[in-house]
Amino acid sequence: MLFHDWKEARMATATSARRGPKPNPHTRADLLKAGVRAFHRGGFNATGVQEIVAEAGVPKGSFYNHFPSKDAFGAEVIDAYFDAAQADLRALLLDPSIPGLDRLERYFSAHTERMTSGGFARGCLLGNLSLEVADHSELMRERLSQKFTAWEGLFAGCIRAAQQDGAIANEADASALAHVLLNSWEGALLRARAEKSREPLDRFRDILFGTLLPAAQGRS
Amino acid sequence: MLFHDWKEARMATATSARRGPKPNPHTRADLLKAGVRAFHRGGFNATGVQEIVAEAGVPKGSFYNHFPSKDAFGAEVIDAYFDAAQADLRALLLDPSIPGLDRLERYFSAHTERMTSGGFARGCLLGNLSLEVADHSELMRERLSQKFTAWEGLFAGCIRAAQQDGAIANEADASALAHVLLNSWEGALLRARAEKSREPLDRFRDILFGTLLPAAQGRS
Repeated sequence: MLFHDWKEARMATATSARRGPKPNPHTRADLLKAGVRAFHRGGFNATGVQEIVAEAGVPKGSFYNHFPSKDAFGAEVIDAYFDAAQADLRALLLDPSIPGLDRLERYFSAHTERMTSGGFARGCLLGNLSLEVADHSELMRERLSQKFTAWEGLFAGCIRAAQQDGAIANEADASALAHVLLNSWEGALLRARAEKSREPLDRFRDILFGTLLPAAQGRS
Repeated sequence: MLFHDWKEARMATATSARRGPKPNPHTRADLLKAGVRAFHRGGFNATGVQEIVAEAGVPKGSFYNHFPSKDAFGAEVIDAYFDAAQADLRALLLDPSIPGLDRLERYFSAHTERMTSGGFARGCLLGNLSLEVADHSELMRERLSQKFTAWEGLFAGCIRAAQQDGAIANEADASALAHVLLNSWEGALLRARAEKSREPLDRFRDILFGTLLPAAQGRS
């Protein structure tokens, strides 16, 4: 087991050797919720453990009872974010009663309205962390990669259904299209934050749904 | 004039009232180069002024002789990065002796090779800062928006040329296509960092050049 610094090593040792009551699962959940909010608002590096425990309303010592390091906490924050964020929209992507292309269009339309009503602040925590920590934490990077793969799998299911019912003429591999669709959406979200404008989201929809997905000559 | 905190206000006042020799322009240039490297490597929030002056090899006091605040410095780092980074590739985008579509394909191909040989580290500083500081610094956000607009203008010129010579069949507005092309590329770079893999860059090229740009039914 490798540690980034002596403090993580010490805390992990302390945790392994800990005696006394089990860590309170409510405290753990509260810390993760606070972490999602704090990292989304201020980023990973700018947010200290002190800020997270204060936001969760728990004593600082309890953090290291539950998590051996800030990186390990960050990886679980990624899980918690992915499970909770836009859960209704992910359910929509899996709804077999709605045609595949409609599911995708409703998904991006609803996401666009939410970003707009939120003033284009915070964006997607997965995208934010990808740029902020991917070079510095292999643990968090791998977790981000897992979530992106799961997310694009939902898109691929919709695309496959729409290719079968004829709504999407592009015959490129559904997984490849889903991969590009997700990455292009992350790029549109990034640009929407730089512009504080919904234009990048609207143009994503116009171009991707207007010309990419209907493209009959897909040859990828 | 508004300041984010008392320190910026004090430094700006001190700068306005400063007597003595003019700030050394070499020091200024060295600080900006150091800022590009340091922000690209570690991000804006995690990099202190102390680290920047140490990297530039200048005394700390000289920072505030040249820049009223870290945000103002960040805005000029964005200028310096955009002027210097990939300057050869931007010149390629403007080369009228090469067909428009070839210019774009060579651009993304070369950029992909550079990202790959660099191990997918650091990525695009404009994208990184968009996610890290757009919510917190209006000054830097506006500068990022300017650069993205200039960058996509180069793409739009290539697309327009390729629409005229018939290499791009998609009849959607060249500016709208360029906007989506740039944002999708930023998203592909983001994903390449999360995956530590060139696959997102290769799939961007396959799908965008294989099915989006040739799409005859562009109706956006």
